[in-house]
Amino acid sequence: MFTSSDNNNAFFLGIDGGGSKCKAIVVNANNEILGTGISGPGNPLHGFEQATNSITESAKLALADANLSKIKLNELTVGVGLAGVNLPILFKQMQAWQHPFKHMFLATDLLIACLGAHQGEDGAVIISGTGSCGFSYVDGNEFMIGAHGFPHGDKGSGAWFGLQAVKQVLLSFDGVIQPSIMNEVILAKLHCKNDTALVEAIAGKSATYYAQLANLVFDAAEQGDQIALAIVADGAEYINSIAGILWSKQPPRMSMMGGLTPRLLPWLDKSLQAKLSAPLHPPEFGSVLFARQALAKQQAIAASATLA
Amino acid sequence: MFTSSDNNNAFFLGIDGGGSKCKAIVVNANNEILGTGISGPGNPLHGFEQATNSITESAKLALADANLSKIKLNELTVGVGLAGVNLPILFKQMQAWQHPFKHMFLATDLLIACLGAHQGEDGAVIISGTGSCGFSYVDGNEFMIGAHGFPHGDKGSGAWFGLQAVKQVLLSFDGVIQPSIMNEVILAKLHCKNDTALVEAIAGKSATYYAQLANLVFDAAEQGDQIALAIVADGAEYINSIAGILWSKQPPRMSMMGGLTPRLLPWLDKSLQAKLSAPLHPPEFGSVLFARQALAKQQAIAASATLA
Repeated sequence: MFTSSDNNNAFFLGIDGGGSKCKAIVVNANNEILGTGISGPGNPLHGFEQATNSITESAKLALADANLSKIKLNELTVGVGLAGVNLPILFKQMQAWQHPFKHMFLATDLLIACLGAHQGEDGAVIISGTGSCGFSYVDGNEFMIGAHGFPHGDKGSGAWFGLQAVKQVLLSFDGVIQPSIMNEVILAKLHCKNDTALVEAIAGKSATYYAQLANLVFDAAEQGDQIALAIVADGAEYINSIAGILWSKQPPRMSMMGGLTPRLLPWLDKSLQAKLSAPLHPPEFGSVLFARQALAKQQAIAASATLA
Repeated sequence: MFTSSDNNNAFFLGIDGGGSKCKAIVVNANNEILGTGISGPGNPLHGFEQATNSITESAKLALADANLSKIKLNELTVGVGLAGVNLPILFKQMQAWQHPFKHMFLATDLLIACLGAHQGEDGAVIISGTGSCGFSYVDGNEFMIGAHGFPHGDKGSGAWFGLQAVKQVLLSFDGVIQPSIMNEVILAKLHCKNDTALVEAIAGKSATYYAQLANLVFDAAEQGDQIALAIVADGAEYINSIAGILWSKQPPRMSMMGGLTPRLLPWLDKSLQAKLSAPLHPPEFGSVLFARQALAKQQAIAASATLA
């Protein structure tokens, strides 16, 4: 008969916390996904309390989804991959969290994405969603490129494409450049009647807000709009560049992921497109693999300390 | 002997409220400046209460500076020029303020800058400080270009130059472009030891923060740094463009103003440099001229109503 203690080892939680949502899965001993939970933003850059609440909530929702609500969080080991914790100050803050789990192993969203994409093996990932970055994990060495944030970095991301488009639309309203077919669709998307309304609407807006406009840029580029084509070429060139730098780390595999992937991929260098492999698992599954590896390492150290 | 009522007509207040400070002057019947007061931010985009407090405080400080503290604010007419009130929602909010003055006449910072620069006559101004924009006032018609805000607009402004520099520095840290001589000076200026510290430091920072880096871009350009030169050329091209559009409105005079003027001016088209005139008075003096014109118009309307 299974005891509660057996449950601890049988079930693992994997969490992927990003800027817009936090996703949790619970898996059994064979890494089969039994349940999934989604909650609010999990990036501690936008608030420690919001992030920790989202992590706890998504975990409970995943257990409920798996009909495992009888298991308490303090019986379970969790792998947590979070956006933002590449910044040391946020990593420390999250690491110091009085979390409700038995064990929590914290990693960047990039490491868990990479582990997920390559089934726990070495590899590299290019991510373009709301933000953008590149990451490789080869022979135990993590390497990151980009991920600098909005509005100063994250070139080739959804937020970057949206911001470039808005900048060009505003310049065309000024009469400094020719108007683009993006002008009308962006105004319509943001429910603005004119340029004054647009300026009011976008004041102080976040990366997420701009990212919603990225698809409009690709739509316009596909219709041959010169301004959209220039933006797409600039963004794609950056992604080509970071791929080149990642290849220099000699990863066995490289994947591209994030919400903008289907739109951006066709604009990348053909040779890069040919070399990219599909991700094998999602990031939250990478969190599970990360937690299993970290727990095994911890137990091995404890065992050798007992023997000594 | 002067009565309190005479004081009302003799003295006028002029206020220029921007993103970093609010400046007030008090003038006598001959428009001679008797006192000056400076307080905190006056742009209502960053808070109605802050802006209104700054306006009141700067007015009191100007009266104190002129040894006129015995005069109460509710005896005086004030012209108030504010950044941000080109947005209708903020103009309405400020117009509805239960202000402490006898009369308050509200205008954009652009109109009062233009009236000041050209002594109340028609003209145009190009402004590049923390933000950037162009403005003309010809035959009673206001025309504005730019002034869209940060980070999506305000090309050629201090904040824009600073942001471009940081973007290039981050790209060079990624290895995507060659490093620039700006790398080290920007890190030093922001007290950052490395790229990670830089990314932490700049997260969520405002236009004012980026604007402090603009001088470093011009320093680097003057030393022949290719990346800085490209940024300066791009910013200058935009300022040349908006000047061209402003000339099409046929202003008798055009001036350039704002904190970046001395750095940016040498990089503009030589023909534009030759045609620019020095501003005759500062914006807060334009506020006085605006208030005098507006009060005279109001009194003329009241007088004609009494006659009818």
